[in-house]
Amino acid sequence: MSEKINQLKQIIAEAADLGSAASLLSWDQQTYMPIGGGEARGQQLATLGKLRHQKATSDEVGKLLDDLKKEFNGADASSDDAAMVRVAARDYDKAVRVPSEFISEQAIVTTKAYEAWAEARSKSDFSIFRPHLEKVVELVKKYVSFFPKGDHPYDALLDDYEPGMKTAEVQAIFNGLRPKQVELIKAISKRPQVNDKFLHKKYNENKLWDFSAGVARNFGYDWSRGRMDKAPHPFESSFSINDVRITNRFEPNNPLATVFSAMHEAGHAMYEQGINPSYERTALAHGTSLAIHESQSRMWENLVGRSLPFWEYVYPQLKKAFPSQLDGVGLKNFYKAINKVEPSFIRVNADEATYNLHIMLRLEVEIAMVEGKIAIRELPQIWNSKMEEYLGVTPPNDTLGVLQDIHWSIGSIGYFSTYALGNLVSAQLWEQINKDIKDLETQISKGKFDSLLGWLRDNIHKHGRKYDPQVLVQKVTGSKITPEPYVRYLKTKYSNIYGL
Amino acid sequence: MSEKINQLKQIIAEAADLGSAASLLSWDQQTYMPIGGGEARGQQLATLGKLRHQKATSDEVGKLLDDLKKEFNGADASSDDAAMVRVAARDYDKAVRVPSEFISEQAIVTTKAYEAWAEARSKSDFSIFRPHLEKVVELVKKYVSFFPKGDHPYDALLDDYEPGMKTAEVQAIFNGLRPKQVELIKAISKRPQVNDKFLHKKYNENKLWDFSAGVARNFGYDWSRGRMDKAPHPFESSFSINDVRITNRFEPNNPLATVFSAMHEAGHAMYEQGINPSYERTALAHGTSLAIHESQSRMWENLVGRSLPFWEYVYPQLKKAFPSQLDGVGLKNFYKAINKVEPSFIRVNADEATYNLHIMLRLEVEIAMVEGKIAIRELPQIWNSKMEEYLGVTPPNDTLGVLQDIHWSIGSIGYFSTYALGNLVSAQLWEQINKDIKDLETQISKGKFDSLLGWLRDNIHKHGRKYDPQVLVQKVTGSKITPEPYVRYLKTKYSNIYGL
Repeated sequence: MSEKINQLKQIIAEAADLGSAASLLSWDQQTYMPIGGGEARGQQLATLGKLRHQKATSDEVGKLLDDLKKEFNGADASSDDAAMVRVAARDYDKAVRVPSEFISEQAIVTTKAYEAWAEARSKSDFSIFRPHLEKVVELVKKYVSFFPKGDHPYDALLDDYEPGMKTAEVQAIFNGLRPKQVELIKAISKRPQVNDKFLHKKYNENKLWDFSAGVARNFGYDWSRGRMDKAPHPFESSFSINDVRITNRFEPNNPLATVFSAMHEAGHAMYEQGINPSYERTALAHGTSLAIHESQSRMWENLVGRSLPFWEYVYPQLKKAFPSQLDGVGLKNFYKAINKVEPSFIRVNADEATYNLHIMLRLEVEIAMVEGKIAIRELPQIWNSKMEEYLGVTPPNDTLGVLQDIHWSIGSIGYFSTYALGNLVSAQLWEQINKDIKDLETQISKGKFDSLLGWLRDNIHKHGRKYDPQVLVQKVTGSKITPEPYVRYLKTKYSNIYGL
Repeated sequence: MSEKINQLKQIIAEAADLGSAASLLSWDQQTYMPIGGGEARGQQLATLGKLRHQKATSDEVGKLLDDLKKEFNGADASSDDAAMVRVAARDYDKAVRVPSEFISEQAIVTTKAYEAWAEARSKSDFSIFRPHLEKVVELVKKYVSFFPKGDHPYDALLDDYEPGMKTAEVQAIFNGLRPKQVELIKAISKRPQVNDKFLHKKYNENKLWDFSAGVARNFGYDWSRGRMDKAPHPFESSFSINDVRITNRFEPNNPLATVFSAMHEAGHAMYEQGINPSYERTALAHGTSLAIHESQSRMWENLVGRSLPFWEYVYPQLKKAFPSQLDGVGLKNFYKAINKVEPSFIRVNADEATYNLHIMLRLEVEIAMVEGKIAIRELPQIWNSKMEEYLGVTPPNDTLGVLQDIHWSIGSIGYFSTYALGNLVSAQLWEQINKDIKDLETQISKGKFDSLLGWLRDNIHKHGRKYDPQVLVQKVTGSKITPEPYVRYLKTKYSNIYGL
């Protein structure tokens, strides 16, 4: 047995190396690559992807897994090796179903679709993107057809991001959440709006960058195993448990976003940095799902980073760095400003009270596309009417509407709901953490985050992909993903801020 | 035929992608990688290297090449496809001779040797490095044994860097050169020394960096297909004909080195940027040899960058950027200062008159090591006595002596002579260029480099690896590599500066 599992580990390690190399190439593409390098980079990524797929789907892997599955059948669930075999077998079963010609076709279609989307978005003209999106949806349907018929065709897509999660489960969770969030927003809209003008003054970019880096360091992001670079969009990327990088940007009209993006991406990064080092180059490396990942980023960004105790600690530092911008602004007003609720067009700029509604809209649209129940050409109207229904605003153009997100253009259908699930999980974990660490708020108000990070490391991070997301949430909180803690969190927070 | 050559090209393209990915990983390791990422990076590079070797030495490649060699036998020498088959066959013949276990062993030995060298160098204690160097030399001898017995065992090593070049040829060239350079240095040493104190004042790093970047741009380095980053050592690295990057550093005690390093690395980079775009991802991509590469870097750094006409053009800009540092320093004195001749311990800091002697010393030592004629433990004494003999100086310790260069620690034996050959080729080409471009000096004194770069593109760059180095030099200058033009160049230059 030990020989076979070592053989499997060796192959998976090499596949992981190819994956990490590809991740670095992508990171470079978004940070430092000169414009001329794009075409060659696409070819390099295609080759690495192809070789990785070949390695991961080789007959040798199939045979090793067949033998190992039998031998590990009924093994202790806490065994790392058993978990590795289980996760590797699932990865393999998925990968072999997808023919390599499909992967090549997908690469070609999505490369063109991405370019068309970028053009369409810049011109606010959905018709440029429409034929490409139609092709992407056809491809996605074809992809679904490679898998056994589930309860819903969308299940196969969701499963790639949330292993084990079913469409019906997500819908049930969202159905429990939607009316509560809509109700809350309505209640807030009747209250006087908070003032946040001082957040939109001119802030010095370098100073904000350093402040953001300092906050990430304070949280526990390990800079000897990471770094923060400029990129068009903030993201986290991991090439090893010991090399987990984040990117950030500066938006002159929304300067504080740099601080919250640093918190968010550091949250992702600390997850990857906290994985059991012995999982390096195995099937268990990396976070277990996008929702669990997002629970970490959103926890640091919102439950910590937009909380009053945190700013009790850090606001004096910010004021010191920006005395003129924050002149006369007290802690309470600053806290209210960074938590202002206002229905808006763009998901990534949405506040905590409205964010999930953006996601629900997208999930509904995606399911309808996969079911073939809507015509792609009608998407802008559908989008806008749902925006009006859920958020009470209608995008004035497609750039601010259906064209705002990159996901569909690169074929990532099935991804969006993990953002909202992540919010829910963050609050669900938060309730448990506050039971386990009684003085958490006090600690945070003193700038102490080690107990919190320690809890996350022990309960979430170190496990990597060992437990599926719902299993992990159940194990840690006693129940599967549920919307109640998030609703409680929002109500408490905004009752205080808006005096509901 | 066209089908088989396309199959071969496809495989070589994928091997090239793996090579480019590995190059980017190495570049990142030396520029941005956090310290923690080192171990994983080593594994990733090992995996990419192994897969590339497997691909390049597959039976499929062997069979395709067998067939293609027959079909292209006697083909028009100017045919790109014929050249590709010839070069690919040579690469293949070399690669298949080296067992993959040897490559793994080499990786392990040199990783440890590199670490030992770094420690030995920092402590100036050769004994730390000695046992590792002994192993490296054993490995190198083993490597030689994989190849047919040549005229000299060192031939197989040299051939990896200078295809087709023989040890005896290099020795003959160096024997013609050595007495002339020794004689020149003696003559210079009898003349009053030039003053270069103003070069060692405090210069602002950012300003020098920008000035250096401006010079590279002026030369013709294409920044849309390149960039310059900070690294512990300046180097050039290419991931595509359209993504050729350079690195640079700032030495507070030798601030102007940043400018000359930028010229040097831009010289390498312009070679790679100038290769026929249709050679991308083929066996003909990249420069044809290290000597030809070095001829390009040294030409821009020295024949252009340390020439009077160039500084006639650019000195006013430098003076404007550094008015206090260069206060009262006229063009002529500045020119003399940057060309100061002074025998010194460190190769990379050596001036044009002494540089090649550092190389000759190394070549002699390397040949003796490979022949087994010297004991490694005697190396420091041998080194020091040769330094005294050629340069009239004795290193006070091993850090300034035998431990100064990284090459042996990473197994690069056979490499050094290409530096000196590059100097010779640069002068040899320069004589030809001045025949072909009559007013070259005038152009340079006006900051116009496009004729020069155009000449280099047409005669050297665009060919990539199509012609072997000696063939290329013969084709362009009418003779193989010869020391006379370099000797003439040095004599003229230093007669003027030192009034010989």
